[in-house]
Amino acid sequence: MSLIVEKFKKLGAENAPGQETRQSTSNIELRGEEIPGTPVDFSHGDVDAFEPIPGSLDVFVEGVHIGGKQAYTEYRGSQNIREDVAQKLSNFTGSSIDYDKNLIITPGTQGALFLAMGSMIARGDKVAIVAPDYFANRKLVEFFDGEVVPIQMDYFNTNTCCGLDLTQLEDAFKSGVKLFLFSNPNNPTGVIYSQEEIRTISELAHQYGAQIIVDQLYSRQLFDGHSYTHLCAQNIMDPENVITIMGPSKTESLSGYRLGVAFGSSNIIDRMEKLQAIVSLRAGGYNQAVLKTWFNEPEGWMAGRIKDHQAIRDDLLSKFNAVEGFKVRASEAGSYIFPKVPELDVSIIDFVKILRLQAGVTVTPGTEFGSQFTDSFRINFSQDHKAAIDAVERIIKVTELYRK
Amino acid sequence: MSLIVEKFKKLGAENAPGQETRQSTSNIELRGEEIPGTPVDFSHGDVDAFEPIPGSLDVFVEGVHIGGKQAYTEYRGSQNIREDVAQKLSNFTGSSIDYDKNLIITPGTQGALFLAMGSMIARGDKVAIVAPDYFANRKLVEFFDGEVVPIQMDYFNTNTCCGLDLTQLEDAFKSGVKLFLFSNPNNPTGVIYSQEEIRTISELAHQYGAQIIVDQLYSRQLFDGHSYTHLCAQNIMDPENVITIMGPSKTESLSGYRLGVAFGSSNIIDRMEKLQAIVSLRAGGYNQAVLKTWFNEPEGWMAGRIKDHQAIRDDLLSKFNAVEGFKVRASEAGSYIFPKVPELDVSIIDFVKILRLQAGVTVTPGTEFGSQFTDSFRINFSQDHKAAIDAVERIIKVTELYRK
Repeated sequence: MSLIVEKFKKLGAENAPGQETRQSTSNIELRGEEIPGTPVDFSHGDVDAFEPIPGSLDVFVEGVHIGGKQAYTEYRGSQNIREDVAQKLSNFTGSSIDYDKNLIITPGTQGALFLAMGSMIARGDKVAIVAPDYFANRKLVEFFDGEVVPIQMDYFNTNTCCGLDLTQLEDAFKSGVKLFLFSNPNNPTGVIYSQEEIRTISELAHQYGAQIIVDQLYSRQLFDGHSYTHLCAQNIMDPENVITIMGPSKTESLSGYRLGVAFGSSNIIDRMEKLQAIVSLRAGGYNQAVLKTWFNEPEGWMAGRIKDHQAIRDDLLSKFNAVEGFKVRASEAGSYIFPKVPELDVSIIDFVKILRLQAGVTVTPGTEFGSQFTDSFRINFSQDHKAAIDAVERIIKVTELYRK
Repeated sequence: MSLIVEKFKKLGAENAPGQETRQSTSNIELRGEEIPGTPVDFSHGDVDAFEPIPGSLDVFVEGVHIGGKQAYTEYRGSQNIREDVAQKLSNFTGSSIDYDKNLIITPGTQGALFLAMGSMIARGDKVAIVAPDYFANRKLVEFFDGEVVPIQMDYFNTNTCCGLDLTQLEDAFKSGVKLFLFSNPNNPTGVIYSQEEIRTISELAHQYGAQIIVDQLYSRQLFDGHSYTHLCAQNIMDPENVITIMGPSKTESLSGYRLGVAFGSSNIIDRMEKLQAIVSLRAGGYNQAVLKTWFNEPEGWMAGRIKDHQAIRDDLLSKFNAVEGFKVRASEAGSYIFPKVPELDVSIIDFVKILRLQAGVTVTPGTEFGSQFTDSFRINFSQDHKAAIDAVERIIKVTELYRK
């Protein structure tokens, strides 16, 4: 097999969210009839149930009418919009972001992650990745010929922190890891890193001269009055060693516009822009205009959104907790929960296919978040409230059919 | 210097189109006063002078109103839109494109190029690249740790073909080159590969088992009744070894929407989709809807656009040809010309900076298209007709000030 074919063998996308229709299901045998109900795709949020920030389309249309200046921005994004976003993110994080040096607008937060990783990982570099964490993290390290060093997170046996194994992280740095990437709140569990965890991570990175990428995609949607610690505002590490990633695709439902930002280290942002120049030139020019609505939502809009999501979360947690063998930690932020399922006599991959075929419910298998998560799946509960509850009831019915 | 820093040193973007405002110009001394006139940015087309396909924004807005289904498409793009585009491109090229297997929608043609190269080049692979050709081609090979093997094109001493050195191409294949990438019409010269050149390229690639990527971005905008040969319709090579790239960013002025497509080899398209999944998930969901207007322009719109561009081209060629020392081949397609300048006593990089500072005219230095093109620059003449002529007059005035 050629090198490139081998490389792409490892880069599987068939169990990734959104790709389910491309799966082979010929090996699946259903036990019993299909269970009727409104189909629910828990692999991503439903932007029909939770619509984009009001006025987003209007701002896009204004961008189109600006014309060439908006169509052809610098690769790092339109200067006007960077000024606005840098100010808003400085306020939000409590850090100082220079629009010209420290920020790049990217095609989604996925784009930001790709550019950051591509700008920081050389062949053979060891990169620490949390287990579990967002599935693309591991794939990105592998694509850039790095080596993944997993750091375990004990999210079930903690409740005032996320449970990251900090000893393992220090050992990783000792063994030569120069980059640590993690999402906060964690994807898929929705747990938030405590202030102490963030401080310790910063201190260790500082001590060992490591770089950090924090993916803060869901850091605005906090439940139960939880507090949130921005690593970029800790002033412990050299700021040139930190990149923070955010974007309006999730809480703000703007995924269809493909917008994200990365901010922090000017050297790394410079490299990210050079890479952007050959990857896709820039985030869609007109699309960039939509960032004006971000952090600029109507009064009460964000609070309402958080309240609605918290209510859905609570109902889904009650449903799962009432069933013998399910185990789930309450998410503290974001729209994910990551239930552990009872022992089944089918694999998690097949179970996920069965859920789709038999119950019209799409979830993401735990193995996408780390190979050991063969007993969990992820739900994005940013859905129509009633449809989500009904769908979880169907998941529970299907579970009973395939329980060991 | 660390490996990654070294890698990005080579990946310069500061002389790339659109990045001119980030250049250092402190070393530049102007001879004489600024020459007044409407600023013209020849580094890309002016979408205010030549507007996007009528109705594009309406189709985008419809896409937003479709909602979640349009926001979250498969990574390779919305099925409906792939069906439509595959049909239109099959008709245009005279080849058979299965929407499900042979086509991916990408963030611009730059996105298509990046995904194709990333899916085909392994570390150490030799890749043949034309000199001159689009500047990102070389950078992409270097980013993926391949080795560039340049193939010369004698565009000045030919006129019924582009002048590609086919002996050099065969030698390259003999020496182990497994991938040949070229743009047709050629960027920056605007010359079209003859049918015989395309056939010979196909035969050589077939004979040596090589793969081909053809960037056909400008293949709809043909002047003077020139004919165009689609490599993908020649039936000489194994179709699994060919990827063709197109998009509506240039002739159709849709660059602000960041849309492109790649079609051909199902194996390579599969890999490109896996890569897309970690690069930016998908082309902007709502943006994809805009492809409905492509190849579906109002009656006479494309013919009018070609006529207008041909008229601008003719006027600019007359201006340059009237000046001692300028040499330029008439472009046969697309919106580029690539004039060779008289001998100057400043470098082409500085001359380009001088043009911007002294005459308000932005052009792209020849060295972006191959290191030997130290005496040429590229102009994208998709501009307001009168402003373009005036700007070329200013270029000529500045040339006289810096002539050796």
